[in-house]
Amino acid sequence: MVFDPVGVAVIGYGYWGPNLARNFAALDEARLVAVVDRDPLRRSAAERAHQGIRTTASASEVFSDPSIRAVAIATPTHTHYELALAALRAGKHVLVEKPLAQTSAQVAHLIEEAEQRKLVLMVDHTFLYTPAVQKIRQLIASGGLGDIYYYNSTRASLGLFQSDINVVWDLAVHDLSIIRYLLDEIPVAVSATGVSHVPGRPENMAHITLHFESRCVAHISVNWLSPVKVRQTFVGGERKMVVYNDLEATEKVKVYDRGITIANMAEPEQLRVGYRAGDMWAPHLAAKEALQTELEHFIDCIDKGEAPTTDGFSGLEVVEILEATSQSIAARGAPIPIKQRKFQLRAPAPAILREQPIEVGAVLP
Amino acid sequence: MVFDPVGVAVIGYGYWGPNLARNFAALDEARLVAVVDRDPLRRSAAERAHQGIRTTASASEVFSDPSIRAVAIATPTHTHYELALAALRAGKHVLVEKPLAQTSAQVAHLIEEAEQRKLVLMVDHTFLYTPAVQKIRQLIASGGLGDIYYYNSTRASLGLFQSDINVVWDLAVHDLSIIRYLLDEIPVAVSATGVSHVPGRPENMAHITLHFESRCVAHISVNWLSPVKVRQTFVGGERKMVVYNDLEATEKVKVYDRGITIANMAEPEQLRVGYRAGDMWAPHLAAKEALQTELEHFIDCIDKGEAPTTDGFSGLEVVEILEATSQSIAARGAPIPIKQRKFQLRAPAPAILREQPIEVGAVLP
Amino acid sequence: MVFDPVGVAVIGYGYWGPNLARNFAALDEARLVAVVDRDPLRRSAAERAHQGIRTTASASEVFSDPSIRAVAIATPTHTHYELALAALRAGKHVLVEKPLAQTSAQVAHLIEEAEQRKLVLMVDHTFLYTPAVQKIRQLIASGGLGDIYYYNSTRASLGLFQSDINVVWDLAVHDLSIIRYLLDEIPVAVSATGVSHVPGRPENMAHITLHFESRCVAHISVNWLSPVKVRQTFVGGERKMVVYNDLEATEKVKVYDRGITIANMAEPEQLRVGYRAGDMWAPHLAAKEALQTELEHFIDCIDKGEAPTTDGFSGLEVVEILEATSQSIAARGAPIPIKQRKFQLRAPAPAILREQPIEVGAVLP
Amino acid sequence: MVFDPVGVAVIGYGYWGPNLARNFAALDEARLVAVVDRDPLRRSAAERAHQGIRTTASASEVFSDPSIRAVAIATPTHTHYELALAALRAGKHVLVEKPLAQTSAQVAHLIEEAEQRKLVLMVDHTFLYTPAVQKIRQLIASGGLGDIYYYNSTRASLGLFQSDINVVWDLAVHDLSIIRYLLDEIPVAVSATGVSHVPGRPENMAHITLHFESRCVAHISVNWLSPVKVRQTFVGGERKMVVYNDLEATEKVKVYDRGITIANMAEPEQLRVGYRAGDMWAPHLAAKEALQTELEHFIDCIDKGEAPTTDGFSGLEVVEILEATSQSIAARGAPIPIKQRKFQLRAPAPAILREQPIEVGAVLP
Repeated sequence: MVFDPVGVAVIGYGYWGPNLARNFAALDEARLVAVVDRDPLRRSAAERAHQGIRTTASASEVFSDPSIRAVAIATPTHTHYELALAALRAGKHVLVEKPLAQTSAQVAHLIEEAEQRKLVLMVDHTFLYTPAVQKIRQLIASGGLGDIYYYNSTRASLGLFQSDINVVWDLAVHDLSIIRYLLDEIPVAVSATGVSHVPGRPENMAHITLHFESRCVAHISVNWLSPVKVRQTFVGGERKMVVYNDLEATEKVKVYDRGITIANMAEPEQLRVGYRAGDMWAPHLAAKEALQTELEHFIDCIDKGEAPTTDGFSGLEVVEILEATSQSIAARGAPIPIKQRKFQLRAPAPAILREQPIEVGAVLP
Repeated sequence: MVFDPVGVAVIGYGYWGPNLARNFAALDEARLVAVVDRDPLRRSAAERAHQGIRTTASASEVFSDPSIRAVAIATPTHTHYELALAALRAGKHVLVEKPLAQTSAQVAHLIEEAEQRKLVLMVDHTFLYTPAVQKIRQLIASGGLGDIYYYNSTRASLGLFQSDINVVWDLAVHDLSIIRYLLDEIPVAVSATGVSHVPGRPENMAHITLHFESRCVAHISVNWLSPVKVRQTFVGGERKMVVYNDLEATEKVKVYDRGITIANMAEPEQLRVGYRAGDMWAPHLAAKEALQTELEHFIDCIDKGEAPTTDGFSGLEVVEILEATSQSIAARGAPIPIKQRKFQLRAPAPAILREQPIEVGAVLP
Repeated sequence: MVFDPVGVAVIGYGYWGPNLARNFAALDEARLVAVVDRDPLRRSAAERAHQGIRTTASASEVFSDPSIRAVAIATPTHTHYELALAALRAGKHVLVEKPLAQTSAQVAHLIEEAEQRKLVLMVDHTFLYTPAVQKIRQLIASGGLGDIYYYNSTRASLGLFQSDINVVWDLAVHDLSIIRYLLDEIPVAVSATGVSHVPGRPENMAHITLHFESRCVAHISVNWLSPVKVRQTFVGGERKMVVYNDLEATEKVKVYDRGITIANMAEPEQLRVGYRAGDMWAPHLAAKEALQTELEHFIDCIDKGEAPTTDGFSGLEVVEILEATSQSIAARGAPIPIKQRKFQLRAPAPAILREQPIEVGAVLP
Repeated sequence: MVFDPVGVAVIGYGYWGPNLARNFAALDEARLVAVVDRDPLRRSAAERAHQGIRTTASASEVFSDPSIRAVAIATPTHTHYELALAALRAGKHVLVEKPLAQTSAQVAHLIEEAEQRKLVLMVDHTFLYTPAVQKIRQLIASGGLGDIYYYNSTRASLGLFQSDINVVWDLAVHDLSIIRYLLDEIPVAVSATGVSHVPGRPENMAHITLHFESRCVAHISVNWLSPVKVRQTFVGGERKMVVYNDLEATEKVKVYDRGITIANMAEPEQLRVGYRAGDMWAPHLAAKEALQTELEHFIDCIDKGEAPTTDGFSGLEVVEILEATSQSIAARGAPIPIKQRKFQLRAPAPAILREQPIEVGAVLP
C-alpha cells in the first residue's frame, strides 16, 4: 500500500522547531507545508531554510487547512494543552514536545479527545528513539543484565534557564520516559529535592529518587547551572552493568561484565559478598538521528492507525510523576506516592525499528 | 625546641592500617613501635614490612606501654569507641579512622575524656589534607568562587561491601567532612534515600541532599555497586565553578570561569538570565601524600598541645549528620533537622600547611 | 562602501561542496547562484537544499555566466588545475579545495594567471581560520610560548581511502599549512616514510619529519586506517607548551606552564636540566565555524582587491613540501631539501579577524 | 623439586634499583642479600627499606660472595658491560637493566661469556611481562587480529633528561622489545630523525620508522619534553585493531572490530575499499605487577637452566636496531639496513605465564 505524503505543519520555530521541520522535510512520507511562529524573524528563518513552505503567525490558520493532516507543537510548555486540544478538535494528528502538558488532567483530556476522533497523539520523548536507548532496552529485555538494581542519571549543563517550567520538567522528563521504557515497573513513590538559585525563578537544580516495589531504585540529578555538560547514566544489573554517556562520539554504551556474587554462609543472616571483574564491551551503534526515526514512526502510526511507542498514556504517566516530584520538592524530600495504574505491558519498540532490527553486534572471540 | 620522636602504635592492620604504619615509619618526628592485630597473618605481614617493630594481638598491651604516647585506630567502626576510650584512659593521644564512632553520644564522650586529660583526639578525615581540597578551600576562602551555590559529589566503585556500616557511613562521610571544611555553614536538614540490594545487609547505594539556611545545597551520591570507579565533585559558585576529579593523575581540580548573569528587568519579578563562558584553569597541585601531611599534623598537635583541624568536634558534627541521614533513609527521604551548634569559625588549616602555604596560583581575571 | 553580493558557483558537490554551498548561502555578502556536478543525484540534492539555485553538469556554463564572479572548486585533486585555470581565464575569482594542484609547476602557473588578471586565487586551508589555530598563533606571536622546540601532530581515522592522492596530500596538507602559519620558518628538508596496505593504492599511512634551520622540528603522522579518530597536536615551546585536540567539544587548546630549565654548570659542557611543572590553562574559544570565517575573508578580498591569508603562494609552498615528501617516501626516509624562497613575512591574520580580534585571554604569569 | 632461595644482589639503587629490591624481597624463591651503590645516602635508604641486608659501595665484594648466585644491574648504561662481564666471570647469573649494553659487540661478548659458563643472561625488558602486552601477543598469535599492518607507538613525558644515552635508547627500547615479541619478523631497515633541544646533550625527541619485508610498518615517537605523559600504542591488523593505553587504570587494551574491506573490481588495478565499524571490546587484565612476573621468571630460569624470554639474543637484536637508529638520525632519516639473523622462532611466553595462562576473557553474548 502506498500512501500520499502526510502534510505537516510545525508550530513553534524556536530551539526545537527547526529540527522538526528539517527532519519532516527530509522524509519521503511527509511533506512540510507550513511553519507557525509569532516572531517574524523566526518565520523568515524558516522561509530561508525551507523555500516554498507557508509561514504564518496564526495556528488556527493551519488547523483549518485540509492539506495539513498532522501538526507538531514545539512551543513553550504552558501553551501545549490549548494548542493540542484545538488541533485534535480540528481533526489533526498531533505530536507534542515534552512535557505533553502542564497537568495530568490536561493530558488525560487530550488522550480522550484523540481517542474519540481516532487521531494519533504522540509525545516527543526523543531519547527512546536513539540507538543507545534501543540497545540498552534490548540488553535488559533479553535478560543480559539480569534483574535491574538501579538507574542513576545525571543531566547537567550551563543550560537555558526556562521561565515557565523548572529543570525537572525540562531535563528529568527525559529520564522518566527512558526509565518507563527500560523497566517493566512504575515507581511507587518519589522523593525529591530542588533549589532555585535565582530569586523568583523555578528550580534550576534537583535530585530525584524513584522508589519501586522491587529493590530497583532510580535516581536523577539535573542541573542548569553546571560548568560542563554531563549526560551520563549508569544502569546496574545483577549480571552486568551499563554506562551510557551520550556525549561520547562513539562508544556511547559500555557494558561491563562486573558485579557482586552473594554466597550463603552457614548462618542464615550471614552472606559473603564477592566481586566479579570481567571484560567491557561497547556495541557498535547505528548513526541514525533519533528524530528521523521518531518522525518516521509518527507518520507510520498515522498511516496504519496504530498507537505510537510514546503515546498519550506514556505522556500521562510521565506527567503524573513530574507532579509528584514537584510536591516532594515542596516538602523537602518527603516521599509522595505515585498513582498506580493497571499494569502496562512493556511498550513495543516502534515498528520501524522492529522491521530494521539493530543487531546485538558481532561477538568477539 | 626539639622533641623526641613520638612512639606510636597502629591498631588494626587490615586495609588502612598498613598505610598508617608506612607513613608513621617515614616520619622523623614519630617512631613506629608496635602494630596490633588479632590475625597472625596480618601481624607477620607487618613484621616483614617493618622489621624491628613489636606485634601483638592485644591492644591493652600497647595501652600499658609507656614508650607509646599515641595510637592510631584502624579497626572496624563498631570497635572504635571502646578502643579509643581505653586508649584515652591510658593517657594516649588518639587518631581514629573515620567515622569516629557509631553514635554521637559516643563521640561526645570521647571528646570529654580527651579534654579532661589534655590529650589529642583526632579523626582521620584524610581528604582535608589533600592538596586538591586545600586548593578548593583557598579558592572559596579568598572569594574567588563567590557565594557557593552547590556542592555535588559522586563516590562510586565496585567496593568492599561492609557489614557493620552502610555506604553512607563508609563513603559519604568523606564528603560530609569536606563540606564542613569548605563551607562556613552547618546544614539545617538532610533528606536521603538508600537501598540495600543484598538482603540483610546495610545500604549499598544512597543519595543525600543537605539543606542550608543559605541557598546553597549539597548533594552526595554514594554507591558500592558501580561498574567503574567515580570520585567527582562539582562546586558551583556565583563567580566561578570547580570540577574536582580525584581519579585524574594531574589536573584534579579545574576552575571554570563560567556562570550565569542576572539582569533586573523593568518589572521586578522578571529577571533575565544570561551566561558567561570563559577560560578554564587547572592549578598545579603539590604531589605530597595526604596521609603524610595528616600524620605530621597529628604529631605536631601532640607536641604543641593544639587541637587538630579534624578534631573531635569535627568528628561529632559529621556523625550527627550521619545519624540524621540514617533517619531520613528510614523515612524514604523525609527531611530530618540537623542539630544547630553555636557557630564554629572555619577550622584553621593545619599549621604544617600554614607554614608551607600552597600558593593560590595565577588568579584568573 | 556597500558592495553587491558576489555571485558564486560551487563546482563539485561531493563531500566538501555542500559545506561550501551552505556557508555561501548564509553570507549576506555572497549569493549562491549555481552548483556544478556531473552526478544527477548530487545535483538534485543541491536543489533540495538550496531551492532556486541553478544546477548543471557543465563547469563551462558557469564560467560564461557574467552573474557569477567567483567559483569554489571542490572536485578531486587531479581536476583542480584545469578547472581553476579555466575559471581564471574566464575572469572568475577562485577558491580551490586543498591541495591547490597536483604539482608546484601547476600552482605557479595559476598564481601567474591570477596576478595578470588581478583576480583572487585562494586555497581552502580551512584550519587556519579555526579559533583554535588563531589562538595558538597569537600565543606564539606574542612570545607566550617562547622559542618553538617542536610541532608534533597526529591525524588518523578510519577514513576515506582516496584513489588520486595519498594520505599525505589528503591529511598532512592540513599540518603543513598550519606549520607555515604558526612558525616564521620554512623547513630546509623533509624525511618521510609511508606505506600502502592495499596493493596498487596510494600510501594510506605516513610519517613525516620536517627539519628547520633552528632547533625546531616538526613531525606529522597521518593514517587512513586507524580504529579511532585522532586529531592531536603538541606544540612545545621554551616557556610553555600547547596540546591542541580538535576532537574536544570544548577545551580544544590547553596551555601548560611546564618545561625544562637549563643551568650552566662549572664546566662548560655540563648543563643541568631541571623541570618546571605549573598550571594548565584552557582559553575560551569562539564557537564560529571556520568555513564561515574563511568565506567571509574570500569575499572581503574580492571586494577590496587584497591577497588572502591563504593565497596562491601559501598553496605553492605547501605543494612544494608535499612533492619533497613524496620523494622522501620513495627513498625510504632519505632527506630531501626544500626549496628556500625569499623570506616571507608571517602571513597576516585575515582582516575579518583583525577587525574582530580574538582576545589572548588571561596570560599566565 | 624444591630449591633453596636464590641469593641476589642488586647493583645500583637509584630510580629502578629499589623496585628490583622490593620485588626480589617479596619472592619466596629469592633472598635479597645485598645492595651495591656508591652513594651512602642511597645505601642507607636501602637499609631502612630492607633491614638485615648488607650494603656496600663495591660491586666486587658481591661478586666474591658465594652466597650470592645472581645479580641485577640497574646502573647507568655505560657501566652495564663492565659490570655484567665481571659478574658472569665471577659465576653469577645476571639480569641487566635495558639497554643491555652500549654496543652490539659488547652484548655479543656477554652472550658468549654466559653461554660458556651456562649462566643465565637476561635483559630487563619489563613491558613483555605486563598483562597488557601478554594479551596483545595472544590476540596476534591466535590470529584474532589477522595480518599486522602497523605498530604505532608514542612514549612522551616531561622526563628525566639522561646524559649518557639519548631518548631512543631510554624509551624507544621498550617498543623495540615489544615489537620483537609481538611480530614474527625482524625489520629490514630503519629510518629515524631526532633532535636535541639542549646544546651538547643527547637527542631528547626522536621519530623512528621500521621497515619490514612484509607490508607491516612500525613507527615510534619518543619525547622527553612533553607537557603531558603519553604511553599509547596502536596495532592495526587486517581483521581487528588494538589501542593500548598504558596510562589507563583499567581498560588498557581495547580491541576494535573495525577495518577495511577490499573488493576486487572488474579491472585488475581497481580495488574498492570499504569500511567495517563494529564493536569494541576491552578484555579484563590481571592486576599483577610485571616486575614480579619477570623476577619469578628469572629465578625459574636459573633453577631450571633455561633461557629466559628476554635473553641475551633479544637484547642483542634490540641493541643492533638502536645502533642503526643512531646512524639514521645522524643521516637525517636516510634508511639504514638492519642485520638479518637466521629466523628466530617467536620467543616462548615465560613458563610462569604458560602455567598460569591469562584467559582470553569471558565472551559477551
